[in-house]
Parts: sequence; structure tokens; C-alpha cells
Amino acid sequence: MEIMQVTGSIVCSQRVPGLAHQQLRVLRTSKGKLSVAVDPVGATVGNWVFTASGSAARFATGDADLLTDLTIGGIIDRWDPDG
Amino acid sequence: MEIMQVTGSIVCSQRVPGLAHQQLRVLRTSKGKLSVAVDPVGATVGNWVFTASGSAARFATGDADLLTDLTIGGIIDRWDPDG
Amino acid sequence: MEIMQVTGSIVCSQRVPGLAHQQLRVLRTSKGKLSVAVDPVGATVGNWVFTASGSAARFATGDADLLTDLTIGGIIDRWDPDG
Amino acid sequence: MEIMQVTGSIVCSQRVPGLAHQQLRVLRTSKGKLSVAVDPVGATVGNWVFTASGSAARFATGDADLLTDLTIGGIIDRWDPDG
Amino acid sequence: MEIMQVTGSIVCSQRVPGLAHQQLRVLRTSKGKLSVAVDPVGATVGNWVFTASGSAARFATGDADLLTDLTIGGIIDRWDPDG
Repeated sequence: MEIMQVTGSIVCSQRVPGLAHQQLRVLRTSKGKLSVAVDPVGATVGNWVFTASGSAARFATGDADLLTDLTIGGIIDRWDPDG
Repeated sequence: MEIMQVTGSIVCSQRVPGLAHQQLRVLRTSKGKLSVAVDPVGATVGNWVFTASGSAARFATGDADLLTDLTIGGIIDRWDPDG
Repeated sequence: MEIMQVTGSIVCSQRVPGLAHQQLRVLRTSKGKLSVAVDPVGATVGNWVFTASGSAARFATGDADLLTDLTIGGIIDRWDPDG
Repeated sequence: MEIMQVTGSIVCSQRVPGLAHQQLRVLRTSKGKLSVAVDPVGATVGNWVFTASGSAARFATGDADLLTDLTIGGIIDRWDPDG
Repeated sequence: MEIMQVTGSIVCSQRVPGLAHQQLRVLRTSKGKLSVAVDPVGATVGNWVFTASGSAARFATGDADLLTDLTIGGIIDRWDPDG
């Protein structure tokens, strides 16, 4: 999974049916790369999150038919040097 | 999903049967990388879109047998700092 | 899918059984990165092609058991500013 | 698989159900890129490990329903010039 | 598939069960990136090989349950300008 920060959302009136009414979040990696993810955990702008990609992204939404390749898996509370 | 801009189309008379007669769009990321995607939403040149890759790309076409690894998932209307 | 140019072929006497007797093409992206792909469309050196990766690459060969992660999907005839 | 070094753990109180109570490790590649992985082998900070990504990451946890795209596959004891 | 060169092996006493007793090879791309792959063809250090990634990597081992995301597909004998 990747570590990314939530920077906003996108609005798309024309989109494929398979995404239902999921909100689409814009995320940024520490190197500045932007991606779009489905958000089942309710992250807000500024949150650091980890994301699941590939086929795991579909299962992570709780609805395996949802057409995403990137899903927020959790909001990072803290980062320990050793867990 | 990735954010890309539509820059044109490609024409291929010789291609594998599994793509049917889908139109193939040329997309460009903000860093200039070019990719080819199937377009089920009817984007036009200049549109910013988000794309699904991997196995999600096949489902996103509405025909899971279609042989694509990148499909346009929606046209971006606007980008909110917080959705 | 990615846009690549055919630059040659590789010959491998020792290889895994799952590739059958498929010819293996060497492709180059516009940035110079080299990859190896199965070629079901009969491309020749110098052709610009688009390629399917991941699980779509297996289906694109017409034989879903073929063990490839990159397959040539079509030869690009021309590139339109808008298709 | 990739070679990475364990640098710590992350704590996430809000996360998707599909990750169960798996511990999430933060890994770093030799180029400094950070990723998050499920750890079924019990690695500690400083260990060099190899990781499986994609659908193999789910199977590697021993529970194919676990929603991960990166799993530690083993701790590297030593590196031989030729094995 | 990617073109890589075999540079050695890794030894891992603690690893996930799904890799059985497969030997793990360390490979290097022309740009110096290192990866770890399962080797069903018996490559030796210095050999140039091509590798299959993703779900194809599991099938390429001849045992689809093997937990790898990179498998050596063949040893490159020679490289023709046109095959």
C-alpha cells in the first residue's frame, strides 16, 4: 500500500456506471504525484492515508463490483519507529 | 485512478479481435507521459478525465471481455479543495 | 495501453512451457525503456504499436493460458488530433 | 518481488474491515520510496525483506480475503553472489 | 515482460509458506533497479533473462499457487534486429 495525503475531491457528472455514487478523492504522494481514489473511510483534506491498488482496491470498498483501482484503506493516526 | 488529459485518437487497422470496434484515445498525464485508453464516456480533446487501470479497466467498459488495461472512468467537471 | 515501437526479437532456447512457440518482440517506449511482448498481430521492426499489460495481455493473445504480461494489441496506422 | 527495509509501523484506528487486525509495516526501498505492507513473518525495524505485490500479496498472507496489495514474503538472511 | 540480468540469490530462513522451496534470484535491470524472482529455468549469474510479472508470474512457475509476482520466463540466447 502507498502513503498519500488527501488534497480534495473531483466532481464528474459523466462517468461509468460501475462507480455508483462513490465520492472520488484526490490524493498526493510525498513526491507530488496525484491520483484519484474511492474513499470508504471518510477521510478529510490534509489526512494522511494508506491506499490499496489493483484488485485489492475493489474488495476494499466492501463492494467487489465497484470499478476502482485505488481505494483508501485507512487514516494514519500515528507513525511509530517500531510498532 | 489517474488524472489525464485527452490529446487525440489512434487508428489501427490491424488489431487483436478482443478490442471490438472501441475507439482508442490518446491521453497525457501532467508529466507528459502518453497512454492509450478505451473511452466509454465520450470524452473530447482537451477534456481532463480519470482513468481506471488493471482488471478494473475491463469491467469499466461495461463488457468484461474487452481487452483493455486502461479505460476512461469519467470526465472531470471541477476539482474542489474539499468535496 | 502504452505506445511503443518494435525494435527486434529475442531468441530463447530455454524458456517456460507456458509461452508455447510465441515470437517474443523487443519494444521501446519513447523514453527508451525496453520491454518484451508477445505479438499476435505480426508487427515488423519500426512499427509503432500499442500494448496491453497485466491480465489483459493474456486474453489479448487469444489463448488465456499463455504466460505473458505484455501483448501487442494493434499496429498504429495514424494518429489523429481528434478521432 | 522487491527488496525493502523495515523502517517502522503505522497505527490506523479508522480502516477498512478487510484488513482485520493485521499489523501494517512501513518499508523503504534503496531509493527511499516508502510503502506499507502486511507482515505475516514478524520482521523488525532494520530487517531487509522481500515483498510480493498485486494479487500474490493477498495469497501470501495465508488469508486470500485480506485486502492488501503488498505483503512481506521473507526476511533476507544473506545475499549470495551466486546461490 | 522485462529484460533483466541475474546478479545473485538471496537466502531467507523465515519466509511465507506459499513460496515452497523455490530459489529466489536477484535480478537487475539495465537502469540498476534490483528485483527478486522465482527461477524455474535454471539461470546463472550473468545471464540475461526476461521476466513475467503480475498474475502471469504465478502461472509461469508451473504451480499457480506459488506466491510470486516475478518469475524468470526464459534465458535470452540472442537478440535479433528483426526476428
